[in-house]
Amino acid sequence: VDLPLFRNSQMDGYAVRAADVTAAPVTLPISGEVSARPSDPPPLAPGTAVRIMTGAVMPEGADAVVPVEDTVTTQDTVAIARGRAVGEFVRDRGSDIHAGETILASGVRLGSRHLAALAAAGIAGVEVFAPIRVAIISTGSELVAPGASPTLGQVFDSNATALAAAVRSSGAEVSLESHVADTTSTLISVLDAVDADLIITSGGISMGEYEVVREALEPLGAQIGHVAMQPGGPQANGMYNSTPVVCFPGNPVSTQISFEIFVAPILRKAAGLPQAQREWRILAGNVSSVAGKRQYLRGRTLEDGRVAVVGGPGSHLVTALAASDVLIIIDDAVTVVAAGESVETLTL
Amino acid sequence: VDLPLFRNSQMDGYAVRAADVTAAPVTLPISGEVSARPSDPPPLAPGTAVRIMTGAVMPEGADAVVPVEDTVTTQDTVAIARGRAVGEFVRDRGSDIHAGETILASGVRLGSRHLAALAAAGIAGVEVFAPIRVAIISTGSELVAPGASPTLGQVFDSNATALAAAVRSSGAEVSLESHVADTTSTLISVLDAVDADLIITSGGISMGEYEVVREALEPLGAQIGHVAMQPGGPQANGMYNSTPVVCFPGNPVSTQISFEIFVAPILRKAAGLPQAQREWRILAGNVSSVAGKRQYLRGRTLEDGRVAVVGGPGSHLVTALAASDVLIIIDDAVTVVAAGESVETLTL
Repeated sequence: VDLPLFRNSQMDGYAVRAADVTAAPVTLPISGEVSARPSDPPPLAPGTAVRIMTGAVMPEGADAVVPVEDTVTTQDTVAIARGRAVGEFVRDRGSDIHAGETILASGVRLGSRHLAALAAAGIAGVEVFAPIRVAIISTGSELVAPGASPTLGQVFDSNATALAAAVRSSGAEVSLESHVADTTSTLISVLDAVDADLIITSGGISMGEYEVVREALEPLGAQIGHVAMQPGGPQANGMYNSTPVVCFPGNPVSTQISFEIFVAPILRKAAGLPQAQREWRILAGNVSSVAGKRQYLRGRTLEDGRVAVVGGPGSHLVTALAASDVLIIIDDAVTVVAAGESVETLTL
Repeated sequence: VDLPLFRNSQMDGYAVRAADVTAAPVTLPISGEVSARPSDPPPLAPGTAVRIMTGAVMPEGADAVVPVEDTVTTQDTVAIARGRAVGEFVRDRGSDIHAGETILASGVRLGSRHLAALAAAGIAGVEVFAPIRVAIISTGSELVAPGASPTLGQVFDSNATALAAAVRSSGAEVSLESHVADTTSTLISVLDAVDADLIITSGGISMGEYEVVREALEPLGAQIGHVAMQPGGPQANGMYNSTPVVCFPGNPVSTQISFEIFVAPILRKAAGLPQAQREWRILAGNVSSVAGKRQYLRGRTLEDGRVAVVGGPGSHLVTALAASDVLIIIDDAVTVVAAGESVETLTL
């Protein structure tokens, strides 16, 4: 459709022929009224004005609107102080968009203004890409659910919670949030039941003895190795029943940062969400790093805009990660950054 | 609780007494194994090493971990090349946080890393602020629902759609999305049934004859007037049954920009969401504005970072608004901005 759908008034006032008011000041008889209520008004009688409301259909013959605040009205006449150009305060049919033009390009994430444009054009629904559906499986016999009472050696599972929330805030859906103990057959039966576009696991990929993810996926050709980063060195990925599987280490901070670095950018792109902001900031203290590994240190923005390291490099420091608002990136070739130098940061 | 809950190993390797490896290279007998599976290991026999996995409980008496990659193991012994400091690769109980310390301050919007920290501390649920619930009522007898077949004079209602989506993306909930024709008694019965923290209306507040919002709210003391801005000049607000009511003009662009300027900042703050970004950008073309009114022009970021005006100032240009990514703010004292000058922008 054309938008506006029909020629209409931009103001509350009087619809006139511009030619009838060139000799202003003039007084014209009021020959009728067009409200914003649906109507098909009669043509404007030459030499007259009709009362019109914002958005109302312009009568045929009328080609300008005189705003009510520029008029003096009696019972039957309107005094108009000055002339008006043809088209003044008139919204032409199609002046926003013409039938056949593109309202929105594909790939736009539909915000309120896009939905408004579709609605204004009468479009009650559009075809959209379905969100990516992600299955989350945390592994580890030592893990118990938050709220349970751990015995010595047990820890609360934070990875399933963290990954599910991170998947959702990256614009994807969680189709499964599950935890399995270190029993390979159990993991395989969970994997068999997965209905998702992507599977993310945590734990079970290092060199120990109860490495269930490794045991389940290595025979299927999964790549299992190390990435030169800290935290998050051990990494794996493969396919299970044609579904890609990304496998993070079990340390909570490693899992969370691995997701942010390796998976979140893809999910955000698929969902049309902006990527996390990267910017260079001034470091508030000295930092040392391990040569040959890219460090993602947890950092906090100070009031003066500098960033300070929160907690240490340990991949178990989950509350330090919660207290941070950026990751501070120390490149693999860099071993020392002094206070006052610039570091690249990634906003959480 | 303390986090970690117990003293544990940071690496797969061997738990030792640091004093037993100061004379390295040394070879120690392997006296046992602690897996990451829940266990309460026996104390470390002096002069021996126990195999230990990442996250496993450190045996009493052990005070350092030698990573497996720094060892050579036979059936019963482990050769250790160099000494280790007390505490090396050991995560002390409480080294992330101690029982009684604050994990999260109140007022934090719970992201994945915050939920992870709560989960890691065994907290399965926390008390949160409920989202603000907003009732949306678009008014106007000329409006028909998207998908309907309008007769001449009718237009599709985009305001209810736009406001509902904008409320949700500002972190609040929509408790009602409704449209009423220009019948004051109908509006009043809809208002009577509202269950919300905030009511937003569109239309019905100007000087015409069928101004239902004005008719319903003015007797209750609503403020109805003009704000020196374009679009969005006509504005009103009041209370209905103790619920605040914010009333926007009916022009679609006016309603959307009014929401962004007057209501979105409050909803975002309540939800802990960041505010829209404001920054100064270079204008790509000349712009003129009306003295005495702050203009919010629709703008689009060009590839070189400059911003260009999209569409005109008309408050009916809904597809131009959809095509924009910033609002260009022209202050009320400014009537002309030349290409190449800076303008303040608000990111949509």
